[in-house]
Amino acid sequence: MSVNTEQQTFTDHPSRDERFAAALRRADLVAAELRATAAERDRANRSPRNEVELLRAHDLLQVQEPVEYGGDGLSYAQASLITRRIARGDTSIAHLIGYHYAQTRIAPLFGTPEQADALSRRNGQEKLFWGGVQNPRGGSDLVLTRSGDGFRLDGRRSFASGASLGDHLSVTAAHEGELVFISLPAGRQGFRALGDWDNIGQRLTDSGGVEFDGTRVDRAEILGPDPLTGRTLTAYQTLVTPHWQLAFVNFYTGTAEGALDEALDWTRLRGAPWETSGVDSAAEDPYVLQTVGEVRSEIRAAALLADRAGEALQAALDTGPSLTDEQRAEAAVAVYEAKYLTTKVALAAASRLFEIQGARATTSAYGFDRHWRNLRTHTLHDPVAYKAREVGDWTLNRRAPQFSLYR
Amino acid sequence: MSVNTEQQTFTDHPSRDERFAAALRRADLVAAELRATAAERDRANRSPRNEVELLRAHDLLQVQEPVEYGGDGLSYAQASLITRRIARGDTSIAHLIGYHYAQTRIAPLFGTPEQADALSRRNGQEKLFWGGVQNPRGGSDLVLTRSGDGFRLDGRRSFASGASLGDHLSVTAAHEGELVFISLPAGRQGFRALGDWDNIGQRLTDSGGVEFDGTRVDRAEILGPDPLTGRTLTAYQTLVTPHWQLAFVNFYTGTAEGALDEALDWTRLRGAPWETSGVDSAAEDPYVLQTVGEVRSEIRAAALLADRAGEALQAALDTGPSLTDEQRAEAAVAVYEAKYLTTKVALAAASRLFEIQGARATTSAYGFDRHWRNLRTHTLHDPVAYKAREVGDWTLNRRAPQFSLYR
Amino acid sequence: MSVNTEQQTFTDHPSRDERFAAALRRADLVAAELRATAAERDRANRSPRNEVELLRAHDLLQVQEPVEYGGDGLSYAQASLITRRIARGDTSIAHLIGYHYAQTRIAPLFGTPEQADALSRRNGQEKLFWGGVQNPRGGSDLVLTRSGDGFRLDGRRSFASGASLGDHLSVTAAHEGELVFISLPAGRQGFRALGDWDNIGQRLTDSGGVEFDGTRVDRAEILGPDPLTGRTLTAYQTLVTPHWQLAFVNFYTGTAEGALDEALDWTRLRGAPWETSGVDSAAEDPYVLQTVGEVRSEIRAAALLADRAGEALQAALDTGPSLTDEQRAEAAVAVYEAKYLTTKVALAAASRLFEIQGARATTSAYGFDRHWRNLRTHTLHDPVAYKAREVGDWTLNRRAPQFSLYR
Amino acid sequence: MSVNTEQQTFTDHPSRDERFAAALRRADLVAAELRATAAERDRANRSPRNEVELLRAHDLLQVQEPVEYGGDGLSYAQASLITRRIARGDTSIAHLIGYHYAQTRIAPLFGTPEQADALSRRNGQEKLFWGGVQNPRGGSDLVLTRSGDGFRLDGRRSFASGASLGDHLSVTAAHEGELVFISLPAGRQGFRALGDWDNIGQRLTDSGGVEFDGTRVDRAEILGPDPLTGRTLTAYQTLVTPHWQLAFVNFYTGTAEGALDEALDWTRLRGAPWETSGVDSAAEDPYVLQTVGEVRSEIRAAALLADRAGEALQAALDTGPSLTDEQRAEAAVAVYEAKYLTTKVALAAASRLFEIQGARATTSAYGFDRHWRNLRTHTLHDPVAYKAREVGDWTLNRRAPQFSLYR
Repeated sequence: MSVNTEQQTFTDHPSRDERFAAALRRADLVAAELRATAAERDRANRSPRNEVELLRAHDLLQVQEPVEYGGDGLSYAQASLITRRIARGDTSIAHLIGYHYAQTRIAPLFGTPEQADALSRRNGQEKLFWGGVQNPRGGSDLVLTRSGDGFRLDGRRSFASGASLGDHLSVTAAHEGELVFISLPAGRQGFRALGDWDNIGQRLTDSGGVEFDGTRVDRAEILGPDPLTGRTLTAYQTLVTPHWQLAFVNFYTGTAEGALDEALDWTRLRGAPWETSGVDSAAEDPYVLQTVGEVRSEIRAAALLADRAGEALQAALDTGPSLTDEQRAEAAVAVYEAKYLTTKVALAAASRLFEIQGARATTSAYGFDRHWRNLRTHTLHDPVAYKAREVGDWTLNRRAPQFSLYR
Repeated sequence: MSVNTEQQTFTDHPSRDERFAAALRRADLVAAELRATAAERDRANRSPRNEVELLRAHDLLQVQEPVEYGGDGLSYAQASLITRRIARGDTSIAHLIGYHYAQTRIAPLFGTPEQADALSRRNGQEKLFWGGVQNPRGGSDLVLTRSGDGFRLDGRRSFASGASLGDHLSVTAAHEGELVFISLPAGRQGFRALGDWDNIGQRLTDSGGVEFDGTRVDRAEILGPDPLTGRTLTAYQTLVTPHWQLAFVNFYTGTAEGALDEALDWTRLRGAPWETSGVDSAAEDPYVLQTVGEVRSEIRAAALLADRAGEALQAALDTGPSLTDEQRAEAAVAVYEAKYLTTKVALAAASRLFEIQGARATTSAYGFDRHWRNLRTHTLHDPVAYKAREVGDWTLNRRAPQFSLYR
Repeated sequence: MSVNTEQQTFTDHPSRDERFAAALRRADLVAAELRATAAERDRANRSPRNEVELLRAHDLLQVQEPVEYGGDGLSYAQASLITRRIARGDTSIAHLIGYHYAQTRIAPLFGTPEQADALSRRNGQEKLFWGGVQNPRGGSDLVLTRSGDGFRLDGRRSFASGASLGDHLSVTAAHEGELVFISLPAGRQGFRALGDWDNIGQRLTDSGGVEFDGTRVDRAEILGPDPLTGRTLTAYQTLVTPHWQLAFVNFYTGTAEGALDEALDWTRLRGAPWETSGVDSAAEDPYVLQTVGEVRSEIRAAALLADRAGEALQAALDTGPSLTDEQRAEAAVAVYEAKYLTTKVALAAASRLFEIQGARATTSAYGFDRHWRNLRTHTLHDPVAYKAREVGDWTLNRRAPQFSLYR
Repeated sequence: MSVNTEQQTFTDHPSRDERFAAALRRADLVAAELRATAAERDRANRSPRNEVELLRAHDLLQVQEPVEYGGDGLSYAQASLITRRIARGDTSIAHLIGYHYAQTRIAPLFGTPEQADALSRRNGQEKLFWGGVQNPRGGSDLVLTRSGDGFRLDGRRSFASGASLGDHLSVTAAHEGELVFISLPAGRQGFRALGDWDNIGQRLTDSGGVEFDGTRVDRAEILGPDPLTGRTLTAYQTLVTPHWQLAFVNFYTGTAEGALDEALDWTRLRGAPWETSGVDSAAEDPYVLQTVGEVRSEIRAAALLADRAGEALQAALDTGPSLTDEQRAEAAVAVYEAKYLTTKVALAAASRLFEIQGARATTSAYGFDRHWRNLRTHTLHDPVAYKAREVGDWTLNRRAPQFSLYR
């Protein structure tokens, strides 16, 4: 496989920069392969099993794990750029890998060093794919209670991306009224994926509801030291939320970039000049050129803000457990600035790009509407007005976003 | 049927206002029926045969014909408001009826009085549904040539809305290099609908390509007096183009109105407050309320501009053949102002309304994305930037839009 | 004077429509005269004494009073269209006349029939100009207390438009904690205009602060029957607030219309093609034409929504004291829809129009920036986000705007 | 002076990074001093003589010259960030220094090594301030002709920023129909500044017209080797235009940043909650917070795109005379992307920020309108629609912007 061939051109010990460059190349290959079939797979609406295998086959799942465990030792910010690349080809699959990268960062934040290390080793060696059962939105709550010498998990969640496919599940639940994070191998009895995801966008994200009915959980699968109750989250641990939000930022950005590329390619090949334009080709039309220029500039700026968000979160992660509340706020707000802007820019681009192409681009076979549908669906994950508000509150009042699984 | 019951409450000779009110009520009933199944029919993507029958059964096809022929004697501006009502339920079907209303106005503009009268009588009595083969965009040209004691029609057209279902077809073709308008009964040999319409929006408009291969055309089916060549179009006749554009304006407007209604209904029933909003229901959320207010105001203003466009075109039609170039320009530009604004407002609304509803509204079963897909598809019919340009050219330079089938 | 000449061409008893048409013509003359010197007067920033005399000389102050009192018997909606016309020439003076028209409607709403009639007679016969001391924003409150056989008024107000120039003042004050409306002749002892209005826009509106220090008020000058306390406002009376808001809507609209006219005139005369545009004149530039078309369409739609707002308020006024809460809400919300949209459209136009004209239009002598400064200043009168919210609350929840002097 | 004190804390040989940091600190001091009086100086509209002296006194004029000549050896990209800092305090003065930095880069691009070195030495040692006579817009052309053993310069130019104050002038003229660049000391006979700059914004930029009437020019003052005619510009030399455009980009960005800071400071100190908001302070208002967040995010993204533009131009400059046409296009287009976006974002911010502050912020004494006036004036320098078009043309067609003094 060409990916390996590429790596063989490195020295025996490629630097992290080299490993990152190689991972980006693998991501680009995957994105190209995904793009070629994205419209068709969007229509077919099947479980993205093959797509997850594609990510695994290209060694993209374990890039954040240490080299000695089989990973590339990349930072979370670097991983999020891989998410962006994948989104250029398929926003659904970028969603899956972006969430996966975030889920695998939970153990380092909340687990004991032993738990984190053990999971990291398995991620690297087994190339595990993680699903998530976290989004608290709308479902009845998930409750963890003591049972025998262990625990049991009961309840439902909507919107559990990748949960039916995950080799491992990252779960949040309430234990005696407090939030706990659980890392659970797939296939545990009493777990059921409802398979009820059929939405207008992000169709291949396996984001349906799940149910736990007396599912056994061992103490070791609950992240963190004893006791389970009375814990106070550190500012460092509350970075968990910006992880997801940064993933969103990057798959919005990559989607816009990919949609622009597609629209340009299509226009070069198939664009036709407008009857009353007086020009010989669509590529000479003054309004087409202006639109391309505006959209290109908007997307570029949004991408730079997304880069900055990644750097800010990474700086906070690199600071480690000594992170102050103010530093956490700075990192989170940097991500939320990018969330606001990438949402706005990507949604607008996905709609405006049709104006470059013209009526023929609405043929279903091209499936260009999937970009707007994907973005419109996911950008409702949490209302972006509240992200703008949180940025404003920090900017005007230095009041930090109060931690929740949404901020 | 309730429609008839309503009419029976009128005096024996209802006024035109009464007939118009009754027609609007019938349209509202049809719209309600269409809305209930719109998402499902959009997915099924079948030929809109039943929908045309629904329009026919509610006596909506012949509203413009004289009362003595079985119609309601409504003006074109009034008919276009029926189109708007239908669009509140289903943009595709509004497209079909809006085009139909425009096609049946071609004979009065281009035909001899006898031709116009004969077609009007048949429209009224037989409740004919008209398809159109007019959009010159993209197809090879359609050519009419002499053949024996008549003519033959050869060539292809893309985008022939309703052509496979029409009882009659309204066709434009080139005859010795000049534009002629033809009114042709359906089923003529050599005509073939390609059935190739599968687009991201306006799916139920039967807008695929058609082919004529030596199709016979009688002289009487070609509108206008002899000779066929050397004709000069009058300003009055060139009103043909604003007819279509006014139909667009109204189905964009109605779509936005219907989408807003749907979003409000849904939110009242199913909306949930945002987790970090601090309010008890979505309907108390400050950002939701602001968005509703903004969208409501924008749509209302667009609708008023659409009303004005209808009045302007109707005033020009009422002036009749003595219409001056300046008067034609005023009417056309009024329509194009509305085209620009309704395009902008309706597209934005179709995307923003999701922000009122939140993530759960993206469930496929609701099909709320069809509004954006419908609008995005049809608003590319001709680039709206050129409509803004034409308005600007008239405003700044008093240079009238030069007639084409697009302006 | 041509105005009188015009009127002489009428029959002895012109209809209200004829009187309205004549008043609009007078307004257009005044607007033209004001426009010619608007930039210069804006810079000079003098008290608008001459401008008020101009309005008086053209019989524009008393248009709402009955013909038998010397007025034109126009409705408030008609008067607000005169405000719009004046705004095409000078937004400050439109502000003054718009507020004046609203102030003179307070007596009919709150006064006894005798009070209302007496003031109406004086308005008609003496062509009184009314200043206002109403805006509760920011000032310490104004308090009315019993004193001897009458009352005394004490306190300060910021933003009292026309108060230093008014022949009469319309004042709101708190009397035993309840809102009362007072109509006071100018020159009363203890009243002082602070002359502190020096703002970036609406410079000629005489909108500085005022002070009352033991100013005597007679019972007859307090609008309404005895007793003064324990009154409940009727829905009809609460129409007072939409009166002001409709004035705003109309001077925003007229300002945008006037600014567009000025920009077009200037461009026709002085516009130059852009160096790299490849066209021979600014009036051929594709981007200039598009911008003109867009701005023209936006302003037209906003004006139609403003028309609708006037009709809605007038319909409520014509209903009279039996007005229901729901009807009041409908009228108010119609005005607030227009408030939101005219704010947005006019502000954007005032900035974009420079893009039609180019760099040379920034010469101070033209004073084209006054449009943006005027609009930016007055559109902050009350935050437009709350108007959108009130529209949304009515639309979604049928919750009516709760009366205040702002809604 | 504190600036020197700061520098003394460095080692004897501060690095370029240290020198840059010190220069930014000096710029911040100057910006703070300028901001304190910006509104007042804007009104007074005097020649910015003192402001230029302030820049000189803080050693900001010669930052690009080598350390051995008394400068800081900063790159052009670094200098443009100083321009941005100054713009936070005063857009006019940022305009002057931004242009100055660009003018002093002309000799390295077009002059012989000897000419460039001699001018650089003088810039460093004498802290020269450069005015420009370059903007070809609108003036009759400036012509250089042989005269005796030298040359003479005749003609007029509009828009010659800093020309009346410059110690040296950077002039473009036509010599035998070809463009030449001239570096002329101030005070040369026959030169006259018309002092006719009185515009709505950028009032302190001394941007009036100038006139040359038989002004003597020596051969050595004409940049470049013999012969003067028949030269072909290299791609590297055509970087001259992006220099100016990058200056614009940075003073738009800095203006937006400064305006935001001012608005936030003002709101913290003087903001008042809206009457019907139900919150206790403006800083709690949901719409205010959202607006702050949106504007903050937009400006940040625009600033990042401006950073990228500086890096791109600098990379091209660092490549030197071997620069290819493609590389020149990449650099220019990076600058033009930023030009489009910073124009849009800064203009919108300058208007929206008032919505954070409310009506009281329109008091003239604050002068907050100067931000919009400054931006509106300068962003018309060349129509931004053409910049978007050039970006689009490169993006879609790989057609490079054809060199002119505007692209």
